Amino acid sequence: MHRHTLTDRVQFADTDMAGIVHFSNFFRYIERVEHDFFRALGMSIWDKSAEIPVDERVGWPRVHVSCDFRAPLVFEEEFTMELLVEEVRPKTLRYLVRFWKQDGALSAEGKLVAACVRRDPATGKMKAVTIPDRIRSRITAAPPELLAPV
Amino acid sequence: MHRHTLTDRVQFADTDMAGIVHFSNFFRYIERVEHDFFRALGMSIWDKSAEIPVDERVGWPRVHVSCDFRAPLVFEEEFTMELLVEEVRPKTLRYLVRFWKQDGALSAEGKLVAACVRRDPATGKMKAVTIPDRIRSRITAAPPELLAPV
Amino acid sequence: MHRHTLTDRVQFADTDMAGIVHFSNFFRYIERVEHDFFRALGMSIWDKSAEIPVDERVGWPRVHVSCDFRAPLVFEEEFTMELLVEEVRPKTLRYLVRFWKQDGALSAEGKLVAACVRRDPATGKMKAVTIPDRIRSRITAAPPELLAPV
Amino acid sequence: MHRHTLTDRVQFADTDMAGIVHFSNFFRYIERVEHDFFRALGMSIWDKSAEIPVDERVGWPRVHVSCDFRAPLVFEEEFTMELLVEEVRPKTLRYLVRFWKQDGALSAEGKLVAACVRRDPATGKMKAVTIPDRIRSRITAAPPELLAPV
Repeated sequence: MHRHTLTDRVQFADTDMAGIVHFSNFFRYIERVEHDFFRALGMSIWDKSAEIPVDERVGWPRVHVSCDFRAPLVFEEEFTMELLVEEVRPKTLRYLVRFWKQDGALSAEGKLVAACVRRDPATGKMKAVTIPDRIRSRITAAPPELLAPV
Repeated sequence: MHRHTLTDRVQFADTDMAGIVHFSNFFRYIERVEHDFFRALGMSIWDKSAEIPVDERVGWPRVHVSCDFRAPLVFEEEFTMELLVEEVRPKTLRYLVRFWKQDGALSAEGKLVAACVRRDPATGKMKAVTIPDRIRSRITAAPPELLAPV
Repeated sequence: MHRHTLTDRVQFADTDMAGIVHFSNFFRYIERVEHDFFRALGMSIWDKSAEIPVDERVGWPRVHVSCDFRAPLVFEEEFTMELLVEEVRPKTLRYLVRFWKQDGALSAEGKLVAACVRRDPATGKMKAVTIPDRIRSRITAAPPELLAPV
Repeated sequence: MHRHTLTDRVQFADTDMAGIVHFSNFFRYIERVEHDFFRALGMSIWDKSAEIPVDERVGWPRVHVSCDFRAPLVFEEEFTMELLVEEVRPKTLRYLVRFWKQDGALSAEGKLVAACVRRDPATGKMKAVTIPDRIRSRITAAPPELLAPV
């Protein structure tokens, strides 16, 4: 899978005194669609399934995120997040997330680079590891035409 | 100690489209002064000190919180939180937190009841326990005149 | 109408380092179901409809909120908020909001008292007013058996 | 002025179940030091001073933000935000914000591009305008050596 969408509604607590969604909340929304993408793949971003041995579990800390803002979202507006897998690297996943306003206009475009990590039993520290095949096999990069600038 | 104050400034992200601090953030503020109170006592709310054996560490989940709102706080306003220990019970602490506006008016009055808990090694569950003496000995209830309605 | 339910899922950003939903977020959830209740009544908590003259619009600042916590909510858990109208007074609405865990257990019980206010054109200040009939006529108090302690 | 620092402490509500500051909060921190920078310049990011005529007031919506994460921040850690003015353009300001951990390590590096806008009285819409001289005259770009990668 290389694309996933999720429609949500702006909550009052997400707005600020400028009357629009506070920009920091776009990153919460980006994470929301990322986690929903994993659920749609039959997995959880939080590798806790009893079927997965503890030493095979991985986490996805953020290495880089960004967002370009075009048009604000407002209270009670329904918006759609469109997640596209931009690139699948051996140890990282790179996503593009577009925010579509109710009227069809592009509100914002975010990027998220998440690293696949596992706790090193020797040092106790997180260490980048190759994405396990059980995850890797379900995710593919989106075709270039979907990733082209809008 | 039975009283602790902390002055802070309203951040932009704490406001909502009504132009005032969103009411849910008063609870973040209440926790902020609670944790600052513990630091002022030379402790941390998060019992992690290497000096404290793991099986003697406690946590402070919230049992009850409330807040009465009188006058809003606005962006960039400096406000003072006044924490008062309302009651010290064997297994719980009860606080009163007053929010004072820059002009001296009362903005809000919150209450927080936190239970002292420890993980039960047998069941893995949190269980209410008597407040350890290392904590109990530093905290006293405020005198009634401080707790009287304002 | 005197009852409204909404099912939602715990987001990662709603959790804290204790591994559960941070208590302040229960108040965001309470507001979420309150606003959804208004939408279910064909209205918006933010009186902005062009059909409503500016000088008849009202707002709903919070006068009092509280929450009792019984069992935590965890990441990705689906939970159901059950809003009950506890009391309809001339100038205020009082709600009870129950949080039901996926397994049917009660997670928390919140209360919210919101005042009906309108900006006084003379002073520019918010002033409590009688709930307009267009709103009042759609909301009734829940029967006592629904409000009885669980 | 081209540099401003602010030291703060990680609050409990800023952490997530991974035990570290949730990445979205770095953007709240970036805004915090940006607004503190304006206060240090004797101004407010929210142009509300009675001395400034309404039609000369400007706002600073975000056009682009990003953050690279190196090392997490944890509960109660004191960290220092170092804001550097990266570029002053006619209608935008570009900032670099470095997060320094208590131990001196770089935690994260954020970027923020804010546009100077004013409400167009004709259309009611926000429109990019030249940064007013009262603001422009107090802000300069940091020297290249301060902006060099660390």
